[in-house]
Amino acid sequence: MNRRWVLVARPEGLPRATDFAWQEEAIPTPGPGEVLVRSIYLSLDPAMRGWMSHDTYIPAVELGAVMRGGAIGVVEASNHPGFAVGDQVQGMLGWQTHCVVDGRALLKLPELPVPLGARFGLLGHIGFTAYFGLLDIGAPKEGETLVVSAAAGAVGSLVGQIGKLKGCRVVGIAGSDSKCEWLTKDLGFDAAINYKTENLHKALKAHCPKGIDVYFENVGGKTLETVLNHMNLFGRIPVCGMISGYNNTEATPGPNNLFQLIVKRLKMQGFLVTDYMPRATEAVKDLVGWYGAGKLQYRLDITEGLENAPTAFLKLFDGSNQGKVVVQAGPEN
Amino acid sequence: MNRRWVLVARPEGLPRATDFAWQEEAIPTPGPGEVLVRSIYLSLDPAMRGWMSHDTYIPAVELGAVMRGGAIGVVEASNHPGFAVGDQVQGMLGWQTHCVVDGRALLKLPELPVPLGARFGLLGHIGFTAYFGLLDIGAPKEGETLVVSAAAGAVGSLVGQIGKLKGCRVVGIAGSDSKCEWLTKDLGFDAAINYKTENLHKALKAHCPKGIDVYFENVGGKTLETVLNHMNLFGRIPVCGMISGYNNTEATPGPNNLFQLIVKRLKMQGFLVTDYMPRATEAVKDLVGWYGAGKLQYRLDITEGLENAPTAFLKLFDGSNQGKVVVQAGPEN
Repeated sequence: MNRRWVLVARPEGLPRATDFAWQEEAIPTPGPGEVLVRSIYLSLDPAMRGWMSHDTYIPAVELGAVMRGGAIGVVEASNHPGFAVGDQVQGMLGWQTHCVVDGRALLKLPELPVPLGARFGLLGHIGFTAYFGLLDIGAPKEGETLVVSAAAGAVGSLVGQIGKLKGCRVVGIAGSDSKCEWLTKDLGFDAAINYKTENLHKALKAHCPKGIDVYFENVGGKTLETVLNHMNLFGRIPVCGMISGYNNTEATPGPNNLFQLIVKRLKMQGFLVTDYMPRATEAVKDLVGWYGAGKLQYRLDITEGLENAPTAFLKLFDGSNQGKVVVQAGPEN
Repeated sequence: MNRRWVLVARPEGLPRATDFAWQEEAIPTPGPGEVLVRSIYLSLDPAMRGWMSHDTYIPAVELGAVMRGGAIGVVEASNHPGFAVGDQVQGMLGWQTHCVVDGRALLKLPELPVPLGARFGLLGHIGFTAYFGLLDIGAPKEGETLVVSAAAGAVGSLVGQIGKLKGCRVVGIAGSDSKCEWLTKDLGFDAAINYKTENLHKALKAHCPKGIDVYFENVGGKTLETVLNHMNLFGRIPVCGMISGYNNTEATPGPNNLFQLIVKRLKMQGFLVTDYMPRATEAVKDLVGWYGAGKLQYRLDITEGLENAPTAFLKLFDGSNQGKVVVQAGPEN
């Protein structure tokens, strides 16, 4: 049987388990040019919150359709010459155990000296977002100060480590003491701020004595407002996400100090990882190289069983995840 | 006698005439290396509002000091080898008829085929702000759509005309029908929107059928919020000013849709004209060339008499000015 989660309601505010309905159906048969894939790891990402509600950079998921999601899987049947049974592949397979997909929309995973889970924790949309957002837009220079919000998240934890590799002073903002400890003890961040218990303004003053040159923005809201006041002249702000607003039922005001953009001559620039896909090989080379040399770590936050996908998804919004959230829908082999 | 306006109070909200005090004193005598300048044109600019209240990109004007301001004048006495009596010069001469200034802080005006008033209306901080903000940060391409706010202002009116010279569709936002008529009839804008009488969202939809590629930001506030929803993918927003907030007594919220930066992959970048001074000759060459060829106009909004400087200054905030606001403190010759 193919088991799957279908979107049945558009949430207001926090998503609920009841926004999804569990269905079982016979495993579908691939038509001409199509491939049947059994999912192994399903990626859960903050951007999915937008997909549930409204059109953003891609259309919203239709009600009654399988919830959209990227996944890694293994080919079980193929009518496409580019894929053979047993191939490991990646694509938008959705929240389901089995997916029939057009071979043209599927990526055969290239051989790389990394575990399968690294395709989400270190590479793919997570790793490329961190790599290009920081290096292409943030353009950190040796000796500069980099601040990262949602620093213990999948992207943020890579951003900070890459900043260290580039010679920056790196300060992370995260939501628990254990996350902060992971950042400083295990990942080599120079400092980490628990925004739930510390005064962010004072903590940034203490930990960024030379001000902030690059702010990698994952959360938006009041955090952005506070950070703007600490930016240095000609600072850069890659805008990757603004998770603090994703569950708001009403549009919430932006920072009241955007005038700082002029005073400090700041650049704020949004980006999507898809824009950088033509340059993916650059990122793979560096990320795999750093990982192999023991200079870059990733952490997966794995939930077992596709039936637990909605619960795992909510971790992204209550801050209880540490590292990249994935659901293991089936065994690797 | 030297007549002058001294800052005596820090305004909350709109500046008042009583924030300044009129003083007369003997004309000072230049010391070694100093130059005595008689002012001709005093430039009045929105940024001065910030200088009255608090440190921004430069320190606030001290209470009891002559109000800061750029001016053009003529040398009446010189103890500096670089300046002779009769030379036309430019510098931060303040709101006064006569100023003794260190020769090192003074610019001798190069000979150019433009009227004296063009040093403020077409060139100097106004012209260079329009030129570099639009071309360096906005980077408009032929066929793209450019929207300018405060479009009938000193900077905005040049920005729109330069946009036309670069082959853009240009839409201005201004605050009266007569301003809008000037933009479309005299300056060649493709359309102009009176934000006081029209619905900005609907008007942008009508006049920017292909969306907005470059938004030259002079006003901030709700205008920015509305424009963000009309930006095209990979749009650019040079942030020159945010005059809508300069007289606010409390910090006002920013746009509630900064998430559009990500969806549209937008770049918002603040700048100050001073950063571009090393490249001033590029701007002078083009601006003077376009002006000489009849392709670029400027308009001065001249108030006669230094005693009227506070009144003229307030025009910037009630929207009654049209073109570059200057005070004529004395005759050109």
